Amino acid sequence: MLVIGVDAGGTSTRAVLATREGRVLGFGRGGSGNPTSSGSPIALAEVRRAIGTALAAAGAELSDVAGIVIAMAGHDARGGVSDWILDPLREDGFAGGLAFESDLLAMYASGAVDPVGYGVVCGTGASAVRVEDGRIVATADGLGWLLGDRGSGFWIGRRAAAAAVDELDGLGPGTALTPLVLQAAGVAADGAHARGGDGRPAGLEQLIRALYAQRPVQLAGLAPLVFDAADAGDPVARRILAGAGEQLVRTVALVQAGPGPVVVGGSIVARAGAPQQLLRQHFAAAFGDQPFVPVDSGAAGATMLALRHRGVEADEGTLAQVRAGILG
Amino acid sequence: MLVIGVDAGGTSTRAVLATREGRVLGFGRGGSGNPTSSGSPIALAEVRRAIGTALAAAGAELSDVAGIVIAMAGHDARGGVSDWILDPLREDGFAGGLAFESDLLAMYASGAVDPVGYGVVCGTGASAVRVEDGRIVATADGLGWLLGDRGSGFWIGRRAAAAAVDELDGLGPGTALTPLVLQAAGVAADGAHARGGDGRPAGLEQLIRALYAQRPVQLAGLAPLVFDAADAGDPVARRILAGAGEQLVRTVALVQAGPGPVVVGGSIVARAGAPQQLLRQHFAAAFGDQPFVPVDSGAAGATMLALRHRGVEADEGTLAQVRAGILG
Repeated sequence: MLVIGVDAGGTSTRAVLATREGRVLGFGRGGSGNPTSSGSPIALAEVRRAIGTALAAAGAELSDVAGIVIAMAGHDARGGVSDWILDPLREDGFAGGLAFESDLLAMYASGAVDPVGYGVVCGTGASAVRVEDGRIVATADGLGWLLGDRGSGFWIGRRAAAAAVDELDGLGPGTALTPLVLQAAGVAADGAHARGGDGRPAGLEQLIRALYAQRPVQLAGLAPLVFDAADAGDPVARRILAGAGEQLVRTVALVQAGPGPVVVGGSIVARAGAPQQLLRQHFAAAFGDQPFVPVDSGAAGATMLALRHRGVEADEGTLAQVRAGILG
Repeated sequence: MLVIGVDAGGTSTRAVLATREGRVLGFGRGGSGNPTSSGSPIALAEVRRAIGTALAAAGAELSDVAGIVIAMAGHDARGGVSDWILDPLREDGFAGGLAFESDLLAMYASGAVDPVGYGVVCGTGASAVRVEDGRIVATADGLGWLLGDRGSGFWIGRRAAAAAVDELDGLGPGTALTPLVLQAAGVAADGAHARGGDGRPAGLEQLIRALYAQRPVQLAGLAPLVFDAADAGDPVARRILAGAGEQLVRTVALVQAGPGPVVVGGSIVARAGAPQQLLRQHFAAAFGDQPFVPVDSGAAGATMLALRHRGVEADEGTLAQVRAGILG
């Protein structure tokens, strides 16, 4: 019996073809597989591409596959609508069962098989879930860059930009972030502080113009600069990262009920540094040491969920197999 | 001798035709007169329309006008480029002098004739300037909704939205803002708190979807709800307005040097309430009681600047005449 787990994200899609024991026979990638982000035709093409690559690697056919789980954000909001993908898969010969699962649940299942535990995702956005009996029973944040995603890559990146702007405007202290942000925005740091006729530094107007020319969410791209500056000892950068960690702890506290493994995904919490450290400390203070598992994606978890949908009792050994197979 | 003062804003334009004594002979309005906001053809048409209406009211011709001042945001960044408006005005018979001035300086000149003083604008955006010898010598903030405009209508409105979102997500306290924001976003408040399958209130997802469907800057439209809720005693709304006032005080402190009249413009500081009150207290603590002058627009100031460009020593009496003429 073969299953396929698909982690269909807004920027990339991963598909895993595995046996009932969790042996990975094939792996494939695609672009955006989320119909909400990119429209159904593109999402369909990218999910099909990832699945096709995984099958080709094993010389297998879609008709050999007993079950597929597609994990994606907003699967609930789509009210179980699956026509965009199920009918085409049937045409490709798929005769098994298809199910959608939350990307956050798949992320959790990529790191833990415990029926009760926590998932914290912090990349461009940020959210936390509590899992009980293999289902998400509580969710916090994930509310987007404008109104939520507290402690996220966007949250950190926006503060990096604001720290540079505030230094140039005279509001904030000098920080190593200013030359880094100016450089990232393509503004010469030399002479950026020289004041023009209206009493403003010349670099400030150029920086503002460059940053507003982007889409707001692109400020998340400045987050790595904050890690770099914090590693080099910059106090402003350190405060930003400590603030991000505190925000994530607040978000986790909203879904907190008892001990359990903590699975963390996304570039910000996966990277060692203040946000991850504060989360670890928080869980240790609340429940003693808890397993803390960084994961790359929800691909392994989607595969585990696909096995469970076929009635397989996928355990820690199965998960270890799947994870090793994806890495290899 | 006649002059015309034009306040060319991003949403509306005002033109005033006045005598050397400040007697207003005509007044006209137009739409967006800022070429950066709406493009040169529209800006030209709207400025022409406002000027034309002002002239028609007096039965005057453009050839009768000795000088025009156009006050607008970003006049400096345009590097003195005036072709978009000067050539067409010449074709219309204008033979006098044309000058551009900062919208912030015109706003100041609408409220005070003192050579030294302060201007604070807080509407959708927020900024502060210090004027010396009739020129802007220091400017703070005005850095846009994403990275600045601290204490502005956007700043207040975004916090109103976040307060509603935080209540529904369990992060924040109950607040009178939540039903007001839900209503403004077209989401039914009844049942908004009922939890769905993933442990989230049904209203939260609807509210998030409605708010992200707008342009971010439209959150400024929620600011009046915060004044309403604060007037009714809501502590969350009161904290938001107090925070806005503190932000404005910080911005003012960046340009502060000595005593002087404080001219305030824009819907947030013009309205009595915490932001205006905290600004008043700040100036009183720093310099003792200072004249505090709310103004509607920069139209009177643009007219005063037009008179000064023609060598007229426009004084307090002149300003009183112009203001009375615009009101009448």
